[in-house]
Amino acid sequence: MPLITHLSVRDIRFPTSDGLHGSDAIHADPDYSCAYVTLHTDVPGLSGDGITFTLGRGTQLCVAVIEQLQSFVVGRSLESITGDFANWWRAACNESQLRWLGPERGLIHMSFAAIVNAVWDLYAKSEGKPLWKLLSDMTPDQLVSVVDFRHISDVLTPDEAIELLKQHEQTKAVREAELLSTGLPAYTTSAGWIGYSDDYRRELCQKYLDLGFRHFKLKVGANLADDMHRATILREEIGDECALMMDANQVWDVGTAIDCMKELAAFQPLWIEEPTSPDDVLGHAKIARAIAPIGVATGEAISNRVMFKQFLESGAMQFCQIDSCRVGGVNELIAIMLMATKFNVPVCPHAGGVGLCNYIQHLSAFNYIAISPSLDKVVLEYSDHLHEHFVDRLNIQDARYRLPTMPGYSITMHDQSLAEHEFPQGSVWRSRKKGV
Amino acid sequence: MPLITHLSVRDIRFPTSDGLHGSDAIHADPDYSCAYVTLHTDVPGLSGDGITFTLGRGTQLCVAVIEQLQSFVVGRSLESITGDFANWWRAACNESQLRWLGPERGLIHMSFAAIVNAVWDLYAKSEGKPLWKLLSDMTPDQLVSVVDFRHISDVLTPDEAIELLKQHEQTKAVREAELLSTGLPAYTTSAGWIGYSDDYRRELCQKYLDLGFRHFKLKVGANLADDMHRATILREEIGDECALMMDANQVWDVGTAIDCMKELAAFQPLWIEEPTSPDDVLGHAKIARAIAPIGVATGEAISNRVMFKQFLESGAMQFCQIDSCRVGGVNELIAIMLMATKFNVPVCPHAGGVGLCNYIQHLSAFNYIAISPSLDKVVLEYSDHLHEHFVDRLNIQDARYRLPTMPGYSITMHDQSLAEHEFPQGSVWRSRKKGV
Repeated sequence: MPLITHLSVRDIRFPTSDGLHGSDAIHADPDYSCAYVTLHTDVPGLSGDGITFTLGRGTQLCVAVIEQLQSFVVGRSLESITGDFANWWRAACNESQLRWLGPERGLIHMSFAAIVNAVWDLYAKSEGKPLWKLLSDMTPDQLVSVVDFRHISDVLTPDEAIELLKQHEQTKAVREAELLSTGLPAYTTSAGWIGYSDDYRRELCQKYLDLGFRHFKLKVGANLADDMHRATILREEIGDECALMMDANQVWDVGTAIDCMKELAAFQPLWIEEPTSPDDVLGHAKIARAIAPIGVATGEAISNRVMFKQFLESGAMQFCQIDSCRVGGVNELIAIMLMATKFNVPVCPHAGGVGLCNYIQHLSAFNYIAISPSLDKVVLEYSDHLHEHFVDRLNIQDARYRLPTMPGYSITMHDQSLAEHEFPQGSVWRSRKKGV
Repeated sequence: MPLITHLSVRDIRFPTSDGLHGSDAIHADPDYSCAYVTLHTDVPGLSGDGITFTLGRGTQLCVAVIEQLQSFVVGRSLESITGDFANWWRAACNESQLRWLGPERGLIHMSFAAIVNAVWDLYAKSEGKPLWKLLSDMTPDQLVSVVDFRHISDVLTPDEAIELLKQHEQTKAVREAELLSTGLPAYTTSAGWIGYSDDYRRELCQKYLDLGFRHFKLKVGANLADDMHRATILREEIGDECALMMDANQVWDVGTAIDCMKELAAFQPLWIEEPTSPDDVLGHAKIARAIAPIGVATGEAISNRVMFKQFLESGAMQFCQIDSCRVGGVNELIAIMLMATKFNVPVCPHAGGVGLCNYIQHLSAFNYIAISPSLDKVVLEYSDHLHEHFVDRLNIQDARYRLPTMPGYSITMHDQSLAEHEFPQGSVWRSRKKGV
């Protein structure tokens, strides 16, 4: 029963804006970064790591929020948290003075996610299991006990969630064996960033086709003529058999989204991702009705389970793109995956950046094994940047995520990577003038 | 044409939790506080002040965000901002790396509001007018030019907004004269906090009746029996002629809200405020349909214009309770007031805390003079705490806000108040152990 003795948190940044990796209609120059939390314990060799993902500037703000919230974990036994998980989670989200600064949204909530994710990493390591296995081995009652159902019970009650989980409980072992054998399907955005030249884009398409990828995502929304041009190149390279997804990164208004997608429909996209504001449930529903059968995908910037609830119940979302760090960590993601399953919406997690691929492989494996026993329309985002910095390095073969086997949530970074990239004192940043 | 030479920001906290002022179903012990921004200029004697309101712990996080955002104002002339106001506002909300930490929601957005509010204070002072007068004197084209219509144009276009403003442009002077003569109607929450004894509550009801108040708000949501008890006391004291409003501070789920309000309907409340999560548009719409003719009121915790848009267009909100610091300051509030007018929903601003009453008198006066020429169902929250700290002190007579006449946005605090309450070094806090 480890005791959490202290929390440390570091501002870790990678200068990815140098190569225009990650450039899209609204994020011109991201430096993929994270606030990196470690929960230290009184058990020698046992600690838990967790991150929240950021784009560079402002990571120190996440660090400051995490320091403010550390009283919810420091000085507590792991079991005092995991044994009363939903109540612990709710108490931290509702700290009586801090709640005003959210509630359950934005900087406070995504910073809290780093702590929650670190608790789960510690929990999985203390049980000697990868997180997906720890979660998949839990009973329906145990799983439901970690979820705060406040403000979602009009759409999903705890009893209903237990029933849903019980339906497929007996066949979990079959799906676990399947995943261990074949892994989870991935798609690539690497050929889709806005900042690339035509030739480089074609080259990347061929590279990822050769690697086995059959799902390609293209960033759109800069202007329609350019979008059509890039889509033409992608379709020329990948052919008609591969899936093409589009992502506007929130840049359009509702009417513009509908107008543009009527043109871009010529390229037969599977989905349009983030066509407008991530807060606009009703707007996404309008778009979805207007452009069917093209689906609407969104989620990486949706605040919390209450927003996901509305997107799902109103038909505003045909693909549910959970982000592992935006909402309040694993506990809230379980609530969202349960609701998505109730509404028969596939969960296709957001990833890329730094560490997000590591996280989502656990979430999607668990979701398939224990919650939603179908891989129809399920495909996980994959990006091949920055994996060398992680101890439990991502294993992609034939465009499929192979399940991790090391205990934990696969987010622990190498000491040298942390030292070199810590902002602003790491060697990578000392020689630069950019940043904050 | 003043140049903004530097920005200073202070963490100002008042130990209001000592007296259980402000206790409700979800905020047990608020210390009313603010991040207090000053924009210094190269013009002797001219500066602009702005705040964002907080409940104590975490105010230093707002300070850190404001420091991060200061490059959007420091080194710029006031005119370079106000002359291209909507684009400036959008650029600051969409800083390419910081945007991920919102977008346009939570800690980042409410901290940005303090800067926006300070810019407007500086603008009004430089023009020698109180803010309500500066805004009321602007033409429809000028007003619309300060608003970012991104993500709301499916419900309100700039052209439509100009038409709406032009309808009542010729009669602005009549309403201005009326307000200068009679002021704006106020309601009190002072008798409604949860933590008070019955006798003290009765005493407060009589005090505010004697002061001329005819609208009383009661906090509910702790448990139904207690809510019924407190409502009984209020109705006994204020009679049937006065309006009784109820406020659950987000504590209920949708089903619980409907069930509780069917019981509390016996007390004929005018509205139920924040019955559930402030993110739940569809949930509020369900509640509104179930409990009509009792209205649903919400807004103090709604993130931005995109969320207000949905509440208004879906009939989820019968009273629009804008908060002067939660969304992105005056610019975004104009967008929200325009949409409320389009949907014929009265704007009844949230106030209390510290400084919020000062702000809303300007917003509501401007709204009545230039946007929505009716006071039907319009009533402004009033709380009589902490007014002694402000240079342009609030003037309430016969339960009506009297219009401020000093130039600016009425938020400048006395130097001594700032010095004594700065956290943690002010004299009020040095002798205490509570806080952060």
